[in-house]
Amino acid sequence: MQSTVVDLSHLLAPVKPEMQLVDTWLVSNLIDDNAFVSDLLAQVFKAGGKRIRPALTMLSSKASLPDGDEISRLHIILAVLTELIHTASLVHDDVIDQASLRRGESTVNRKWNDKLAVLIGDLLFAQASICLARLMNPQIVGIYGQVLGDLCAGEIRQMRQQFASVVDWDAYLQKSVHKTASLFAAGCQSSAILNRREELVVASLKSYGTNLGVCFQIVDDLLDVTGNTDQLGKAAGSDLANGVITAPALFVLEQNDKSASRLKELIDTRAVGQADGLTEALAVISQAGGIEKTVKLASKYAEAAKSSLDCLPASTYKDSLAAVADYLLVRTN
Amino acid sequence: MQSTVVDLSHLLAPVKPEMQLVDTWLVSNLIDDNAFVSDLLAQVFKAGGKRIRPALTMLSSKASLPDGDEISRLHIILAVLTELIHTASLVHDDVIDQASLRRGESTVNRKWNDKLAVLIGDLLFAQASICLARLMNPQIVGIYGQVLGDLCAGEIRQMRQQFASVVDWDAYLQKSVHKTASLFAAGCQSSAILNRREELVVASLKSYGTNLGVCFQIVDDLLDVTGNTDQLGKAAGSDLANGVITAPALFVLEQNDKSASRLKELIDTRAVGQADGLTEALAVISQAGGIEKTVKLASKYAEAAKSSLDCLPASTYKDSLAAVADYLLVRTN
Repeated sequence: MQSTVVDLSHLLAPVKPEMQLVDTWLVSNLIDDNAFVSDLLAQVFKAGGKRIRPALTMLSSKASLPDGDEISRLHIILAVLTELIHTASLVHDDVIDQASLRRGESTVNRKWNDKLAVLIGDLLFAQASICLARLMNPQIVGIYGQVLGDLCAGEIRQMRQQFASVVDWDAYLQKSVHKTASLFAAGCQSSAILNRREELVVASLKSYGTNLGVCFQIVDDLLDVTGNTDQLGKAAGSDLANGVITAPALFVLEQNDKSASRLKELIDTRAVGQADGLTEALAVISQAGGIEKTVKLASKYAEAAKSSLDCLPASTYKDSLAAVADYLLVRTN
Repeated sequence: MQSTVVDLSHLLAPVKPEMQLVDTWLVSNLIDDNAFVSDLLAQVFKAGGKRIRPALTMLSSKASLPDGDEISRLHIILAVLTELIHTASLVHDDVIDQASLRRGESTVNRKWNDKLAVLIGDLLFAQASICLARLMNPQIVGIYGQVLGDLCAGEIRQMRQQFASVVDWDAYLQKSVHKTASLFAAGCQSSAILNRREELVVASLKSYGTNLGVCFQIVDDLLDVTGNTDQLGKAAGSDLANGVITAPALFVLEQNDKSASRLKELIDTRAVGQADGLTEALAVISQAGGIEKTVKLASKYAEAAKSSLDCLPASTYKDSLAAVADYLLVRTN
């Protein structure tokens, strides 16, 4: 794991003008002329967020753009759509998890109520559907339809596996692909489809997005153990407190030693749901080497993501895509 | 208003074989091979419901089918998609309204919890997106994208107008189009688009669906006052209790007499939210003639729906479409 601190905005500088258009589009009200709806959208996006999904979509668009072609309105819409789906699922996740803090701001469900949070999530999904329609590309519609399904299936799987201290890496991986990597992959892959690139390029960018997305999820798991609430913009340890068995916990649980059985006990008795139990569980995970193994696993996926870029010609955009994989390993939020 | 009781299944008999395919498709799990997800879908659709939206979509498909063409898998998918969106919005509405009873069965939020209800609604929307993608028709994708937006916008408008006893028929009509008629119109109109029919036929079926949908909403309002919980499969008077100002209430409120001021008082003080206040408000509406005026308004939209069918050739399907408009006026659930 690299120890240098990398600045994400520096990596994304090659697509800065396009990302400003994305930000404008995100708060545009495509549904009706209702000022209340426009205000809601503005509020939801005010907190910002890293915009990493639309940025990767845009970098992929640029990196796979045929000679002589230019970035069009469709590329911007594809990036916007990717962030809309992400944000919609966050808003509904916060209802599901009864979370209070997201991106350092009060969540919609906390600031208003669960009812409005359900509606705003639906509204964002609807905005995404309208964007999708505007792309007029049946293949991309199919990809994003599946992504929406994967997001729900992943969330339902996670809900059903809550407080289940069984080690099942296949289930963990499948959940990570459904919950996180599918959307990363969709944006990257669809960029190449919009650019009418050959199957090799489409498949390579899909592979890049999938591996990067799994890496992102693993690092998210890591930050749930190592991060602090201020940096994360959400409560540290909240996954474990909610009974979500993250990668660092899985590494400890599979060790078959005293640390494993203590952690298993804290999960099975739901002691992790209380402050004392959570603090002890996080300490057990750290001391038993769960963090190092998780970093190694994340690095493996980051390397796989970078290798997927081999078929693309050299460009600053390709360099940024590779650098983002490295950045994910050192990100702190 | 006709006094003969019409049997809906008789009216829909011409599309019975197709509607059996729709029922099979509705519970098919397009997202993953997860048995839990399949069971959830089966549970949600077990209660049945009238399936009026997919039936109208199918009747429109048949009524506008060019000579020599046959009903295809795409027509079935279009009908399925229409019911999926309707059911998804019901599941989320029940979370928003904290309803306990729907189609005579416990609601998802009551049987399980709000969290799973949010997820199941999202899952149904995702299934709808996958169906939409399979139609491979950008124009229809655009229409349904707008429908999804209209549904949210309509719900947000309704939420903001709760307990607002101001008479604004334009707002009432716009909300009814957004919340109800847009989806009816989308199914009917898209049938003609799938059939590659000329603009006149597409516009006529859109007009049929819109007028029928507004009629449906007005009759829903009526049943909230006149219906009983057993017949409705949901609590009678629940709109008024939730502060939703329905058509019969609007007719009384605009009368500028003693009934109007008493009803306004019961709404403004939120007394309608309690059993006593609700009973009194329903009695005031009945005695002040709110029901008769609402029946007349519903009839007007039913007639407009029937007139929209003029450009279609004579067929049993066209007859059924017209008969459904009459049926809506005498329906009891």
